[in-house]
Amino acid sequence: MVAAICFVILCVSGCRAGAQNATDPLPSWNDTPSKRAIIAFVTRVTADGGPDFVPVSERIATFDNDGTLWAEQPVYVQVAFALDRVKVLAPHHPEWKQQQPFKSVLDGDLKAIAAAGEKGLLEIIAATHAGTTTEEFETIVDDWINTARHPKTKRLYTEMVYQPMLEVLAYLRANGFKTFVVSGGGVEFMRPWTERVYGIPPAQVIGSRAKVKYELRRSRPVLLRLPEVDLVDDHAGKPVGIHQQIGRRPIASFGNSDGDFEMLEWTTSGRAPRFGLIVHHTDAKREWAYDRQSHIGTLIRGLDEAPKRGWTVVDMQRDWKVIYPFQR
Amino acid sequence: MVAAICFVILCVSGCRAGAQNATDPLPSWNDTPSKRAIIAFVTRVTADGGPDFVPVSERIATFDNDGTLWAEQPVYVQVAFALDRVKVLAPHHPEWKQQQPFKSVLDGDLKAIAAAGEKGLLEIIAATHAGTTTEEFETIVDDWINTARHPKTKRLYTEMVYQPMLEVLAYLRANGFKTFVVSGGGVEFMRPWTERVYGIPPAQVIGSRAKVKYELRRSRPVLLRLPEVDLVDDHAGKPVGIHQQIGRRPIASFGNSDGDFEMLEWTTSGRAPRFGLIVHHTDAKREWAYDRQSHIGTLIRGLDEAPKRGWTVVDMQRDWKVIYPFQR
Repeated sequence: MVAAICFVILCVSGCRAGAQNATDPLPSWNDTPSKRAIIAFVTRVTADGGPDFVPVSERIATFDNDGTLWAEQPVYVQVAFALDRVKVLAPHHPEWKQQQPFKSVLDGDLKAIAAAGEKGLLEIIAATHAGTTTEEFETIVDDWINTARHPKTKRLYTEMVYQPMLEVLAYLRANGFKTFVVSGGGVEFMRPWTERVYGIPPAQVIGSRAKVKYELRRSRPVLLRLPEVDLVDDHAGKPVGIHQQIGRRPIASFGNSDGDFEMLEWTTSGRAPRFGLIVHHTDAKREWAYDRQSHIGTLIRGLDEAPKRGWTVVDMQRDWKVIYPFQR
Repeated sequence: MVAAICFVILCVSGCRAGAQNATDPLPSWNDTPSKRAIIAFVTRVTADGGPDFVPVSERIATFDNDGTLWAEQPVYVQVAFALDRVKVLAPHHPEWKQQQPFKSVLDGDLKAIAAAGEKGLLEIIAATHAGTTTEEFETIVDDWINTARHPKTKRLYTEMVYQPMLEVLAYLRANGFKTFVVSGGGVEFMRPWTERVYGIPPAQVIGSRAKVKYELRRSRPVLLRLPEVDLVDDHAGKPVGIHQQIGRRPIASFGNSDGDFEMLEWTTSGRAPRFGLIVHHTDAKREWAYDRQSHIGTLIRGLDEAPKRGWTVVDMQRDWKVIYPFQR
């Protein structure tokens, strides 16, 4: 009994030998510098009486979603959702048969969709994401996310979350952290499932958002989703979203692309101790390998500046024993 | 011991006889229908296995601030702050000596300030609330709130919070609720002190807000407060702010003026059980008495519609044993 207690105490203060045993908080991580950096940080800020102790109320950690908590290839999940929505809504829009970029979507012409670029994508999202009430949209997302499958793995998208990152979320929460999602993706596309999948409730999800309008429909109040952007929660929009919704600077942030650069910069330029981590997609076999040349999850500046800023760069291939929960 | 446990169990399930004893969750409330309605609601939604049980993750309660959690007479506290800021900033604005509404503020001419109306007030707030970084503004608010005193009671403003409402906040939290402030006041004017005073952390404070901009100052990132409104969190803006920041419909809301009407409407039109409460300022002796004719905390529609909507109307004079904590 005494031995067991001592063992736990030793491990809480950061034992490395424990990596393979039951008390390892990050069992899906190999024993590399990335894992050690996470544990060392948590150990420092939770060491009561230590020089780097951070009170529980300030233990705030923010996580990007696409490419950081779940897979974002071959297209962002929300894009797959939007393309499916075009097909569902097509009977109400006969004009789409002739009108780009909708025609390409209905024809399944992926090359033409890609050629339509960001502008085409925004048109598709505007046409498929507005005009409903917030509750209707929640139901639409819920129905889709519970049935749609990834084109390559044929798994539900919510199965394609990163097991090692789920362990980081749980480890931080077990150490008094409040965990937030801070994503460029739409906040209403994430909230229906983040609590179930990540243990993160809607109030702790920050994302891009449309304007909404309060109105009465037959004396029943609704919030109507308008075709106007209220916040683009990406790049410099992430610290803004964090400020609006959390109102405190995080002490740890996790991202994977240059869209997360400002979030990590904002987090790690606060008074020490701070922690920044970038998930580097290096595993072409088990996941995907991409960074500087990729249009999805572009990572250039983050890679260049991580060393001098003291950010941890996770080498997915080297650092992670498994990628997805179903591989355990 | 067994008796004590049984007693606690009985009280948790809603004993009314307990109102006068140590386990009373709302000791500053008289035993009137208002108090009974609060306890009955909490008892219903927390009764495991009962027909109205609500899981912890959905136990969300929202509270207006001015006039609901703290006093708002003779002027909103934030207005007192803005007027003081005019005096502090005046040496940098020599033109204010001739320019209205600033001249009236510097001359201490309260009648002229009042005559300048809402437009004058917005000018004062724009001139005194923008142009700093968010961290600078936080320090300014913090310094002011810790020293400024109410003109009538000479107390710190944070002492002029309503003891009975502090008990409601604590009672709800003890029953698994997450409590949020949803105020027309500026979010950055509240966040520096709500955790200490109400036990509500910054991430659970929703308010009106200015736009902010992320930028680097000598390679240090800051969030600059811009002279542009991003959200007016009042009337129909309250359900919008709730949706943006909580992402779930509250099951209980507490307000005091018609600025809270839509918040209570949004909350109580969800599927039952729901709870709406209006603090009616009826106590000219211990606090202030005002409703339909008042420019501050105007309450007309709320009073008219509360009965048919099933909202509880607190009669401050009748229902509250004490108003402020220092009167206990």
